Amino acid sequence: MSELELGCADAPLLVDLYELTMLQAYWREGLEDTAVFELAFRSLPERRNYALACGLDDVLGFLERLRFERPALDRLASLGAPFSDAFLRRLESLRFEGDVLALPEGTPVFPNEPLLQVVACLPVAQLVESFVLNQIHHQTVVASKAARVVAAAAGRRVVDFGMRRMHGTDAALKGARACWIAGVDATSNVLAALRYGIPASGTMAHSYVQAHGSEAAALRAFAALYPETTLLVDTYDTEEGVRRVVELARELGPDFRVRAVRIDSGDLAALALAARGILDAAGLQRVEIFASGGLDEERIDALVRAGAPIDGFGVGTHMGVSSDAPELDMAYKLVAYAGESRLKTSPGKELLPGRKQVFRVEEAGRAVRDVLGREGERGPGRPLLEPVMRKGQRIGAGRASLADARARAAAELAKLPEPVRALAPARPPYPVEISPALREEARNVRERVVPGPAR
Amino acid sequence: MSELELGCADAPLLVDLYELTMLQAYWREGLEDTAVFELAFRSLPERRNYALACGLDDVLGFLERLRFERPALDRLASLGAPFSDAFLRRLESLRFEGDVLALPEGTPVFPNEPLLQVVACLPVAQLVESFVLNQIHHQTVVASKAARVVAAAAGRRVVDFGMRRMHGTDAALKGARACWIAGVDATSNVLAALRYGIPASGTMAHSYVQAHGSEAAALRAFAALYPETTLLVDTYDTEEGVRRVVELARELGPDFRVRAVRIDSGDLAALALAARGILDAAGLQRVEIFASGGLDEERIDALVRAGAPIDGFGVGTHMGVSSDAPELDMAYKLVAYAGESRLKTSPGKELLPGRKQVFRVEEAGRAVRDVLGREGERGPGRPLLEPVMRKGQRIGAGRASLADARARAAAELAKLPEPVRALAPARPPYPVEISPALREEARNVRERVVPGPAR
Repeated sequence: MSELELGCADAPLLVDLYELTMLQAYWREGLEDTAVFELAFRSLPERRNYALACGLDDVLGFLERLRFERPALDRLASLGAPFSDAFLRRLESLRFEGDVLALPEGTPVFPNEPLLQVVACLPVAQLVESFVLNQIHHQTVVASKAARVVAAAAGRRVVDFGMRRMHGTDAALKGARACWIAGVDATSNVLAALRYGIPASGTMAHSYVQAHGSEAAALRAFAALYPETTLLVDTYDTEEGVRRVVELARELGPDFRVRAVRIDSGDLAALALAARGILDAAGLQRVEIFASGGLDEERIDALVRAGAPIDGFGVGTHMGVSSDAPELDMAYKLVAYAGESRLKTSPGKELLPGRKQVFRVEEAGRAVRDVLGREGERGPGRPLLEPVMRKGQRIGAGRASLADARARAAAELAKLPEPVRALAPARPPYPVEISPALREEARNVRERVVPGPAR
Repeated sequence: MSELELGCADAPLLVDLYELTMLQAYWREGLEDTAVFELAFRSLPERRNYALACGLDDVLGFLERLRFERPALDRLASLGAPFSDAFLRRLESLRFEGDVLALPEGTPVFPNEPLLQVVACLPVAQLVESFVLNQIHHQTVVASKAARVVAAAAGRRVVDFGMRRMHGTDAALKGARACWIAGVDATSNVLAALRYGIPASGTMAHSYVQAHGSEAAALRAFAALYPETTLLVDTYDTEEGVRRVVELARELGPDFRVRAVRIDSGDLAALALAARGILDAAGLQRVEIFASGGLDEERIDALVRAGAPIDGFGVGTHMGVSSDAPELDMAYKLVAYAGESRLKTSPGKELLPGRKQVFRVEEAGRAVRDVLGREGERGPGRPLLEPVMRKGQRIGAGRASLADARARAAAELAKLPEPVRALAPARPPYPVEISPALREEARNVRERVVPGPAR
């Protein structure tokens, strides 16, 4: 098998070793009652007012297909870990037959709110921890960043250019997907475009210009083959490059159908203004200006506020790796076992016990606060956690399409209070209250569970 | 095909759209002479004194296998992009038959030094841009961070715990690989351990403790099954947890073979000191202390300097996503075509023209400066770019093993000046000079290539 592939047969091996050693221990000890694990993040990075839940579809696909085939078991046996033959044999029949509740993809989510709730027998629910985190963490991180970029662009076109600096092949695909859910308009990534039905977009590289004898020859050749293309104008001198586009328009007359010029370096506001002036003076008002090069939401916001005549943005690295906050403090934690709530009290990593629900309270179509309550309690607003899988099969929102997720993100983001949608830190942050019933439960469980001093 | 897989058949579709449109244009125009592209980064992040070259092996594997199979071509045809039938037919016979030179994996590298030099016919050399960047960028970013973590640990054991927060499945595998090359001792990632032969390591999760009726019962059960394990002691109260390990030792007598306790939260220095005291007082000097939880090189350095009695570190998120610098400003640029040097002069993104070599000057076994020169010039030190592929087949250092890369990293990092290896920013930074011949070449090419004002 090549190093490019992560086939289905390999996917169950993408676990942390302790998940397998704990699995063997649980089976040995007969700890196979129903467990509830919840996935949540503890806090938001400084420059995030919300996160955008994303990645559920890949997790559900993984759970549906989870099985250890013979070759995977043989490889496990070769690891030199303390796995018994009986354990490896039993792994062969392991399936995910539990229930999952989740915030549908595209839902804005806040600290301590479960994005996902896995209800399954303890050994299997524990086993899937790292894979579940790996997928939901990454896509949520990227979608949360991309939503800010889209907001900053204020209606102007945003294209994902991030593949080359996203972290590996899976990130390049899932990152493009997350950007699309968050409202980005297109991707340069051909495989992502094909796999997810995202519009593909691309222009030309500096190397194309460099390879030709002259910039003018390069622009002429590219426009001849792709009449409605975008021409890159900053290889040598941006204003000169724009003048060459004007020359080409004169040369081609009515056959000139170039849609845009792209500026990829320098003072984008000043260069866009200059380019606009040159194009307009030549009667090329309909040729748009597309900007790229180290953009993030702050730079885009500054360009938009400065009134730079830019019609669209190509955004790569900073969106694709969420460079200012490439991680969320996200964890997958046991909150109930065998019908009893569980907690932990590790300093700085305390956990609210028991199965929960998130209620979003809306007034006049605007979200005003969330309440984190106990599952089953009658909360004050709309419950956000929905059943997405029952007995290992997708149901309801678990079958949502990518288009559903994108539409949900647009609708739900629009309902957030304006300061929460804005780029600047919301002061105060969006309120997440804990219901009296959940507080009471936390108190009770703490008294019951936390051990006294050792003798 | 499932969404987990990126099969070989799909790999060539992981391109940016413009690479395909430029490819079609190059073929139409007959621009098929030999091109030289170089991969380099323009600057180092503030908290990096060097980068550690990594990811070459995956790039060479990709180039060896590059081919568009029928299903991929059918999918491309469905994209709605302006690809002619003749173009798609010709893609079917496209292979990578060029030469590659590279810094072997594990070589410390500095701004503007080519990590990779692709010498191939222009259309094909251009096509592979995004994939090459995607792999080398990610692994170099992670290896560069991991080398700092290893340096900070100053000989103490470091285990990669990052899979859950690395960006997707490919990042989880390649990230573990990059950490291993940089000197990390083991990984929790089972598939990475199997695929790369890295030692697998793991302890237990809080959920294991929570699922049991009491912490003592959990520790007892785990140690019964895995006598030489590491026991997690911070689920409720760390010092109490350590006392329970002491109780277990008394209970088991000579059968007690637990190797370590793990502390995952709180004031690690203070808790490790307290734990050491409790263990030593009970005669358990040989039980080691392993720390984890939000660690990065700065925190590890502070713990080591404070003399915290910690024997090993589990490092996850911050190393796995290189959280303070998740990207390098890395680009793949045309430097020569048809035997002539090329450059670009985009503001802030100028490019030195022509095929280059990196010379590392060493004195008394210590690297003192690098010189960036022209390929073929007789440089002042050891040339670092080595042939790794000829006519599409791996040669020489292109066949280096993972063990070679890890050994090289250790040896080459040890040769760097102490301030460059240190965590603090090196002032002045490691010197990279430009040879007089390369300066002269840049001047000449600039005069020849940069166009005059448009008429």
